[in-house]
Amino acid sequence: MIKKQSALQEKDGVSKPETTSAFSAEKIKQNRAKQNSVPEFVSKILEGNITFLSKAITLVESTNANHQKKANEILKQCLPYANKSIRIGITGVPGVGKSTFIEAFGKHLTNQGKKVAVLAVDPSSSVNKGSILGDKTRMEQLVTDKNAFIRPSPSGTSLGGVAQKTRESIILCEAAGFDTIIIETVGVGQSETVVHSMVDFFLLLKLAGAGDELQGIKRGIIEMADAIVINKADGDNEQNAKIAKVEFNRALHLYPIKESNWQPIVLTASALKNIGIEKIDKMITDYISLTKENEYFTKKRNHQNKYWLLSTINQQLKDNFYNNPLIKSALLKEILALENGKTTPFNAAKRLLDL
Amino acid sequence: MIKKQSALQEKDGVSKPETTSAFSAEKIKQNRAKQNSVPEFVSKILEGNITFLSKAITLVESTNANHQKKANEILKQCLPYANKSIRIGITGVPGVGKSTFIEAFGKHLTNQGKKVAVLAVDPSSSVNKGSILGDKTRMEQLVTDKNAFIRPSPSGTSLGGVAQKTRESIILCEAAGFDTIIIETVGVGQSETVVHSMVDFFLLLKLAGAGDELQGIKRGIIEMADAIVINKADGDNEQNAKIAKVEFNRALHLYPIKESNWQPIVLTASALKNIGIEKIDKMITDYISLTKENEYFTKKRNHQNKYWLLSTINQQLKDNFYNNPLIKSALLKEILALENGKTTPFNAAKRLLDL
Repeated sequence: MIKKQSALQEKDGVSKPETTSAFSAEKIKQNRAKQNSVPEFVSKILEGNITFLSKAITLVESTNANHQKKANEILKQCLPYANKSIRIGITGVPGVGKSTFIEAFGKHLTNQGKKVAVLAVDPSSSVNKGSILGDKTRMEQLVTDKNAFIRPSPSGTSLGGVAQKTRESIILCEAAGFDTIIIETVGVGQSETVVHSMVDFFLLLKLAGAGDELQGIKRGIIEMADAIVINKADGDNEQNAKIAKVEFNRALHLYPIKESNWQPIVLTASALKNIGIEKIDKMITDYISLTKENEYFTKKRNHQNKYWLLSTINQQLKDNFYNNPLIKSALLKEILALENGKTTPFNAAKRLLDL
Repeated sequence: MIKKQSALQEKDGVSKPETTSAFSAEKIKQNRAKQNSVPEFVSKILEGNITFLSKAITLVESTNANHQKKANEILKQCLPYANKSIRIGITGVPGVGKSTFIEAFGKHLTNQGKKVAVLAVDPSSSVNKGSILGDKTRMEQLVTDKNAFIRPSPSGTSLGGVAQKTRESIILCEAAGFDTIIIETVGVGQSETVVHSMVDFFLLLKLAGAGDELQGIKRGIIEMADAIVINKADGDNEQNAKIAKVEFNRALHLYPIKESNWQPIVLTASALKNIGIEKIDKMITDYISLTKENEYFTKKRNHQNKYWLLSTINQQLKDNFYNNPLIKSALLKEILALENGKTTPFNAAKRLLDL
């Protein structure tokens, strides 16, 4: 998993920091972002300029209204060049080897001349300062690869906010010519569902362990997975991984056939020893061929866009209502009346909505 | 599970239908409901008059604006007399014996002089015409018990709507002197969560079967349960039920201690042979004593009221927005633009919200 801090260092060799103070460097960077015009941003992004891509994502993630306005303009002009990548979601609990896997998989792709962007959705990172996240140096090969772009999770208080920023970053990465977008998530709370709703292919990383493999796994995740990859299938662990594969295969077959017509697959791999990575790549290619042929690919993306349209509206309706100072004080009064048995939830709601 | 149709027959001996046509009978009933004044309704309900309770619930369930207005007035005036019952949620898959269990449990309570109302939350009943529901004659003993009141699930297109009506019906039943309210649900989709959010005690009915008892069970339900009762624990099944009891007990102990300080309990019962019913009654009494003493009882009810207040507001905000004809047509245009890659979900949302 990628840490927020690394965003400032990574891939930014073009602009040397004029000062050693991180604060001033960040400030200068912000000022610069302000100075570049929208057309400048767009043409640089379309050229594949990583520095401008990074700066544009910083604008997308900013809470400053001017930055947001600029970000929206850039997004709008980048949009015709977006949508051409394959978006892959990767989830798995901490310790499953997500970073090592993404590094091995990403290198495999860049070695074929592909351009890989790695984004993350981690709603917890702003709360616990990324403490549950792995070592930021884990993807050191991919970090220095000129065909790879790695960006940590945007911070944000709500998963919806984090997700919106990530979806907008996907568009910018696509416009910058990245043909594979990997979205990783640690799978806290609802974050897998959110990542699932923004990718074409959803991959669940698992470990083989002793005992019941399915114990403790969230049922919904298995249902969402297009593939389960049992990682660390090497050495003494290989036999366990094979057993786990059988068990997961059985679990997957309990579900009805997906609308994509794709039968989810269980594979074993060792990201550390680079075993099984090619097979995974081929599997995803097969999936894309199948779903593009049966048109599920486009159908799913349209469906995802509609979902995001509606959920953005619903969130905004709530924000507008509850952030109204009049509502804020009236709500407190109604809650008090509720506690004292003087009103019903429905009468209280009605009064608030009639304000 | 109780069917919608039985609502018109059950407990309504007071008013003989003047015509054999169901349509006309319903119409006459509606006219009558209109004729009775709010104070008349309230005083009759407070007297425990079942006919007026039924009529008031019909007003609550009506989509007619005048009926709703009247229902709100009745609710408001009944409110000071509500909130004094014990609300018990009962869920379990079809075939688990919910109706038989509720009949045995309900009779056990009315035999002690208690007054029992049985309501249902079944969002599917309006869609599939109740075809998955059990035989409506299953609770024949309870139906004829003067201290019992049985009301089928209100129909409605959304679970939220069904839930609101049920919660309002709870208030009316309480005002009519019912001291135990049983809410049953078949557990389709999110309905257990909704029922859980309106009851004091949540009971999950299970069957003992061969093999892994936990297979296929929704993890969330176990987490919500204050008790699991393994039904049909009689004859050849008794041994299986005991094994299941051990297994469920183990599963329950995997969860952290509840805020209520209550350790969920697994019991076996045979509703058909009236075995184990008394123990269940005692368990619920123990739960109520514990949670009233540690004040969790009130805390939970306040929390539930707040939850319903907010979810009613959120639903209404959405309804107001999406039912606006201006939005309806603009939304279609934005969705088309989305499909053609001319806008992003977030830009489209912004444009719609700015209308």
